[in-house]
Amino acid sequence: MTEARTARRTRGGGGAARRAERTAVRFETAKFIERNIPNFEVLDEEALQVIEHNAETVLEEIGVNFVENPAALDLWRAAGADVDGERVRLPRGLARELCKTAPSQFVQHARDPAKSVTIGGNSLVLAPVYGPPFVRDINGGRRYATMADFEKFVKLAYMSKWLHHSGGTICEPTDIPVNKRHLDMLMAHMTLSDKPFMGSVTEPSRAQDSVDMAGILFGKEFVADNTVMTSLININSPLTFDATMMGALEVYARNMQAAIISPFIVGGAMAPVSVAGTLTQVLAEVLAGVAYSQLVRPGAPVIFGAFVTSIDMNSGAPTFGTPEASHITYGAGQLARRLGLPYRSAGSFCGSKLPDAQAAYETSNSLNMGLLSGVNFMLHACGWLEGGLVASFEKFVLDADQLGVLHRLAAGVDMSENGQAMDAIREVGPGGHYLGCAHTQANFKTAFWRSDVLDYKPFETWDEEGARDSQSLAAVRVDKLLADYQAPALDPEIDAALRAFVAERKASMPDAFS
Amino acid sequence: MTEARTARRTRGGGGAARRAERTAVRFETAKFIERNIPNFEVLDEEALQVIEHNAETVLEEIGVNFVENPAALDLWRAAGADVDGERVRLPRGLARELCKTAPSQFVQHARDPAKSVTIGGNSLVLAPVYGPPFVRDINGGRRYATMADFEKFVKLAYMSKWLHHSGGTICEPTDIPVNKRHLDMLMAHMTLSDKPFMGSVTEPSRAQDSVDMAGILFGKEFVADNTVMTSLININSPLTFDATMMGALEVYARNMQAAIISPFIVGGAMAPVSVAGTLTQVLAEVLAGVAYSQLVRPGAPVIFGAFVTSIDMNSGAPTFGTPEASHITYGAGQLARRLGLPYRSAGSFCGSKLPDAQAAYETSNSLNMGLLSGVNFMLHACGWLEGGLVASFEKFVLDADQLGVLHRLAAGVDMSENGQAMDAIREVGPGGHYLGCAHTQANFKTAFWRSDVLDYKPFETWDEEGARDSQSLAAVRVDKLLADYQAPALDPEIDAALRAFVAERKASMPDAFS
Repeated sequence: MTEARTARRTRGGGGAARRAERTAVRFETAKFIERNIPNFEVLDEEALQVIEHNAETVLEEIGVNFVENPAALDLWRAAGADVDGERVRLPRGLARELCKTAPSQFVQHARDPAKSVTIGGNSLVLAPVYGPPFVRDINGGRRYATMADFEKFVKLAYMSKWLHHSGGTICEPTDIPVNKRHLDMLMAHMTLSDKPFMGSVTEPSRAQDSVDMAGILFGKEFVADNTVMTSLININSPLTFDATMMGALEVYARNMQAAIISPFIVGGAMAPVSVAGTLTQVLAEVLAGVAYSQLVRPGAPVIFGAFVTSIDMNSGAPTFGTPEASHITYGAGQLARRLGLPYRSAGSFCGSKLPDAQAAYETSNSLNMGLLSGVNFMLHACGWLEGGLVASFEKFVLDADQLGVLHRLAAGVDMSENGQAMDAIREVGPGGHYLGCAHTQANFKTAFWRSDVLDYKPFETWDEEGARDSQSLAAVRVDKLLADYQAPALDPEIDAALRAFVAERKASMPDAFS
Repeated sequence: MTEARTARRTRGGGGAARRAERTAVRFETAKFIERNIPNFEVLDEEALQVIEHNAETVLEEIGVNFVENPAALDLWRAAGADVDGERVRLPRGLARELCKTAPSQFVQHARDPAKSVTIGGNSLVLAPVYGPPFVRDINGGRRYATMADFEKFVKLAYMSKWLHHSGGTICEPTDIPVNKRHLDMLMAHMTLSDKPFMGSVTEPSRAQDSVDMAGILFGKEFVADNTVMTSLININSPLTFDATMMGALEVYARNMQAAIISPFIVGGAMAPVSVAGTLTQVLAEVLAGVAYSQLVRPGAPVIFGAFVTSIDMNSGAPTFGTPEASHITYGAGQLARRLGLPYRSAGSFCGSKLPDAQAAYETSNSLNMGLLSGVNFMLHACGWLEGGLVASFEKFVLDADQLGVLHRLAAGVDMSENGQAMDAIREVGPGGHYLGCAHTQANFKTAFWRSDVLDYKPFETWDEEGARDSQSLAAVRVDKLLADYQAPALDPEIDAALRAFVAERKASMPDAFS
């Protein structure tokens, strides 16, 4: 973090930058979670070995496809793989060996050095929902997302104490041409927030734009040596690596920027209907993807990803917060730790169309399981609705509030003298009560996690105030946060340079809407 | 279970009983959960030893009060405790030694022997909410509970696949005199359901009525030798055992009927604001209570209970689904296992006034933590609303549905050849899809847990059908279950004998409403 601070302090404008920084209002952001509790391990040693053996069998016998990517095939051939057309078969152990150069944890630097995050080890970094083409709020209902919505979400993420990361495509700004919207999204993350963010992956050229804009924001030299973006590279499950995603991965790996290498699996469609079968395929895919990243550049930071849902066999709809998804998430965490890689999974997943009880059951199932499975980077940690088709404003703040629960759970139990509280038990004695005792007075402000949005009022008060449900209370909080929002200070020279870059890139291309 | 089946088959009427049994419609009830996954252990060995040491210090130095109960004081004196007025101080180790005669698990027999449950070991038995004076439904809103509401809940519990237990005071039938309502509640559990149930604890005489009615239902000899009720004995935390609850415990223990011995703690009010301090007090209280049960009758079946919530220090309201409650629930599970006692905790806890997102977040947090903390008996597993003041019909069926998730989570991962699914991965290969493959076809019906109430429909269908939220969908399910309900067969002679007993007991007392 010291490096980043120095980098920022020494580059760009003088007086104006300092002035902007001095006058800026600061909102509290919690440090990324450092777990002080064990992970939950659903698989025993024998089961893990079976899955690892089977994954090697998949790579050796079946192999993976690298589609329309002759350069990748050359790299694989040189590494000792058996390449047959686009099919790449890996001798047992090759992929695992190649994965060894990937770091077990890395720092992603933020514009505000205090908000830089460590990804890997016992950390958990929380980032908002990614990808929905629609948004929903209590007044406007469900509609296509726009850039204005996107900016609101970036502001909400910035204002949330429990989000460590600004994320990436929080929603798709469908009013901006497809080939230009990455520029506006990056601009929003870079200027409306000072938390870490993600780069574009939809074309290799857009990944390069992301690296170039990061160079303006952080300084080119800084970006050359440090990770300032973590981007999402989906595998086209089963066992297929397409040229677009791999092209983006190549750009990021070459530039030492981080990538989540993530199977995208609806169980029963893109993977077997069974947990062990899905884990086998996930491991085989991640092994191949991470190994490839290390062929591109040994030491490039990568994350073992696992986006896994089950399917409703009646309707074909993906389903969320299900026990099968939990088993896979727990198991994949164990496999990632045995590989020595940071792990990405879980999120505010739900299939519900509304931020109602269904949404919350499904989301809580996934958030709790994500914490206990040892996830290091949780994308979609808040705001996900309707199977990821919708980013919900109200659910965003409700979920973000629940992320505070994860922080406290992860902290573990305070076993200090104060935590043991023997003096309090002595002071109060049988039949007494603790509200007024010295220990309670000394500790009550920090003793219990407290929601910033849920209702704890007496029934009568709640009733008089309109008997509002969670969605209505959340809508109030959304409005309040957006009203209170103030942008973090940014050196005006950097701001101007970013705007110039975006304008120039936009002018260089015709608009494309598909 | 064989004993119970024989007992039922041989007692009571002949042809009519068999006829009733033959024609009865049966609804599926899942077997109680037998965990095939590890427990989550938040405390390390050192922390556990500290808490156990401190609990002994509490019992030795501070002691507990047995209020208005001279017979209990005599028992304690004879056992070697230091009795000073109503204060009972226990030499280190005495309580733990006395606890050793309590069984580590026991069978609670049900009227339908197939529904008997094992409580302890790796089991998890799920029972509905207990105690609310109010009910709520989508049409009638919040109102005082009546006997008609109570009967509806017994029917819903009977119809629920995932509830193993009919519970006790699912809601308070406030339209029946206080001194008589236990008779009507028992009658409902005994005749409208054939699942196991709880006895009355509000007076020793009502506990005796429960034992007597159980004698009619199961046969007196059977009840003398077998546990057919599990009842809820709350400790008046901190460290106080009142005469009413202890009187009921004495009746049950003498009759070898099971009791949950349970601190009732709102943290910061009835226990210290810290997790370790609360665990210390919980352990001290349970040690004293269980030890007392074994003084009354060595070998009486008891359960280590821990009802624990935190408090909102702004409003004084109890709060639910909080990380502090989770820590305590995990830790108390570890302490219970070290004592070799069955464990009761967790439930569908929430503070929300409505079955909305808040209710579901809080409930899911508690249910998930309950499963992973090794709970053996989960009271309040469905239907709890508004801090336990309200039993909600819609939340009852929503929560009960989520209990299906716990069943699947607890089953663990299938590592059979079929589970490994290597043939499926071979058959489908890179770029294929699994929906049509042989393995999917063979397994899809049972591969994934499926909700019976949540919405998985396409957006357009859902929208055309009225864009219903979870509460509305749940209301439909409540009506459907109640419309489909048919009482389980009961020998008409037993039914008549129960009714005669209730009539006689009611006639023997004036009505009391407080």
